[in-house]
Amino acid sequence: MKNSPIPKPKLGEPYLLTPGPLTTSYKVKEAMLRDWGSWDDEFRAMTRDMRSRLLDLIGPGSDMYDCVPIQGSGSYCVEAMLGSFVPKDGKVLVLANGAYGLRAAATLKCIGRTYHLLDKGDYLPPRGDEVAEILSQDAAISHVLIIHCETSSGILNPVQELADAAHAAGRKVLIDSMSAFGAIPLEAETVKYAAMVSSANKCIEGVPGFGFVIARKDELVAAKGNSHSLSLDVEAQWSAMEKTGQWRFTPPTHVVAAFVEALKGHKAEGGVAGRGARYYLNRDTMVSGMRELGFETLLDDRWLSPIIVTFFCPADPKFSFNGFYEAMKDKGFIIYPGKLTVVDSFRVGCIGQLDHYVTHEVVKAASDALTHMGVLSAAPPAAALKERKKLAA
Amino acid sequence: MKNSPIPKPKLGEPYLLTPGPLTTSYKVKEAMLRDWGSWDDEFRAMTRDMRSRLLDLIGPGSDMYDCVPIQGSGSYCVEAMLGSFVPKDGKVLVLANGAYGLRAAATLKCIGRTYHLLDKGDYLPPRGDEVAEILSQDAAISHVLIIHCETSSGILNPVQELADAAHAAGRKVLIDSMSAFGAIPLEAETVKYAAMVSSANKCIEGVPGFGFVIARKDELVAAKGNSHSLSLDVEAQWSAMEKTGQWRFTPPTHVVAAFVEALKGHKAEGGVAGRGARYYLNRDTMVSGMRELGFETLLDDRWLSPIIVTFFCPADPKFSFNGFYEAMKDKGFIIYPGKLTVVDSFRVGCIGQLDHYVTHEVVKAASDALTHMGVLSAAPPAAALKERKKLAA
Repeated sequence: MKNSPIPKPKLGEPYLLTPGPLTTSYKVKEAMLRDWGSWDDEFRAMTRDMRSRLLDLIGPGSDMYDCVPIQGSGSYCVEAMLGSFVPKDGKVLVLANGAYGLRAAATLKCIGRTYHLLDKGDYLPPRGDEVAEILSQDAAISHVLIIHCETSSGILNPVQELADAAHAAGRKVLIDSMSAFGAIPLEAETVKYAAMVSSANKCIEGVPGFGFVIARKDELVAAKGNSHSLSLDVEAQWSAMEKTGQWRFTPPTHVVAAFVEALKGHKAEGGVAGRGARYYLNRDTMVSGMRELGFETLLDDRWLSPIIVTFFCPADPKFSFNGFYEAMKDKGFIIYPGKLTVVDSFRVGCIGQLDHYVTHEVVKAASDALTHMGVLSAAPPAAALKERKKLAA
Repeated sequence: MKNSPIPKPKLGEPYLLTPGPLTTSYKVKEAMLRDWGSWDDEFRAMTRDMRSRLLDLIGPGSDMYDCVPIQGSGSYCVEAMLGSFVPKDGKVLVLANGAYGLRAAATLKCIGRTYHLLDKGDYLPPRGDEVAEILSQDAAISHVLIIHCETSSGILNPVQELADAAHAAGRKVLIDSMSAFGAIPLEAETVKYAAMVSSANKCIEGVPGFGFVIARKDELVAAKGNSHSLSLDVEAQWSAMEKTGQWRFTPPTHVVAAFVEALKGHKAEGGVAGRGARYYLNRDTMVSGMRELGFETLLDDRWLSPIIVTFFCPADPKFSFNGFYEAMKDKGFIIYPGKLTVVDSFRVGCIGQLDHYVTHEVVKAASDALTHMGVLSAAPPAAALKERKKLAA
């Protein structure tokens, strides 16, 4: 990897080829080496800077929007968005094709909001005509929830097509862009979402500890009193922050400092376009190398995200995920188990502080792992290929 | 400060004399310099170690309890505890004498649990006989919520007396020990709480980003299905963690690593007794020095916590909080505004990586600040002393 301009993890830890936590730069982590008072001007200035840098990423029309950070994991932010922007008498069409769509539906059930679940199974993409059809038959649906990149399979869902279908029927759009925002464009002017959420710890390459909502200001005003939770109330966090410049409750100060550093790195790389270009190249070199070894991807090229890719486990009985995981870890790469219900699979992430020099090494490590396990062919079982045909149908 | 065995903040940042975020050791922050996969064995081992070290702090009988970390700020943890352990038809007696008690009541209102609020105002302590009286008149009350140290005023509430009164009436006890746990004993065998919460970023001296619930195992089992929130469901986090060793949703990995380091430092200092001894000495040197300068504390000695102390602002018209704050910050100390409604006040924290050598310097800085502002006497206005008489009454 001596050609890579991105330094290897300084403390020798493995690369995290996962949907997050991911490998961050040493500079980002170094920003956590001091303590800040959350009440003090210096930290308030950092919070202001962070919000403004995030709004810059949604392109023209960002003056209609505001950015509200929320303490906790990504799922906390999704819950905060749903509880704050969907009124108690609202109804959500949830477009699910994996774990995160299903979790959003479970969240709505828990917090007492009605919903219609379109469950496409493990990976099939929801389409605009399906959305139009459902909305034409159910006038009670007020919001459509889109998962931007469903990391269960790694599919990049057709956000623009889905948002257009929702808007054509006069409904509002909410987007879970947890794993995509910052690397794949999500422009306010074209996608016209009411609100979206993402995390500090995905494509912007900060460390985990909070996420953020970007929402239209009129939606923020209208959200007052909606939330089922005191802590996860986006409007209350927003209005307190507007008034005092402080987070309503103790912020994860060190994680915020790391994130501001990560945002500077993101801008220096060329923003969303630059970050995306690196991830696409990571994906392309990794996928083509793995295919040369005989591995097959779950998805056709058009649905492959530059975030994370699902590969079928080889049919060869000498292959086991645990053996492969350990062999890859020995080489310095942590991969991720698959989430398909029908066939065995594993996932390899393309995001974080790594480039195509690293993904070449990933392929080499996978090749060595197969040899080590005595696996002669990486070809998947027949059931896997049958599964994939559903996508073409 | 050359005599202090505790190193000064390495990067020259000011001491945070606040109820948190507080000054942490460089070693704690250094633990954040690498990335972990949350799915990986190494991180799971860290989580296990952390939970076990926390249970060690509650003394004999800890085998009846378990520890469940919760992502987010302290208020998230309070909300998680209330939503998880108070059944939907339960009722809570909230013992309030400041902002945190009132916030707990607001949380119950928001999440739809009934409560009886005993509001003692800015600082007067709730007492056991009041609790007994209220409970004797309201059989619907199932739980009593006690704030251990109310940092609004810095008062150390009489937890044992209040818990005894609750148990004598057959009710369950929940404790918000956010700012006290780790420095003031809260033993399971004597206080017999159903559940308590605290934070990574208080007396154990980690960085902010999550907190934890310590609850009786039978209460955890009984909490299934109670929670109003998917993210803040303590039972769901617990059962997932017991099954997989992982946090249910992405953990703040770096903050967890820092906290494990902080727990090691806590043990090395002699655990709760050792940590408490240092904080009591911080308080005593600071309070006696400030009194020599003419400042007066809001509370009588018996109610002063070793966590944070409220002082009345001097009556001298040349004194302003903002001027004092800036002068103290120039000397390297960040103090905290007061929260009293009747008279002006400020607060100075005793917790974090500092000792009595540092608190001597705090007093010296306060003296210099008064001189700088041209304040001749630090004596409070008559209204302040009248206010304090209420406590003696």
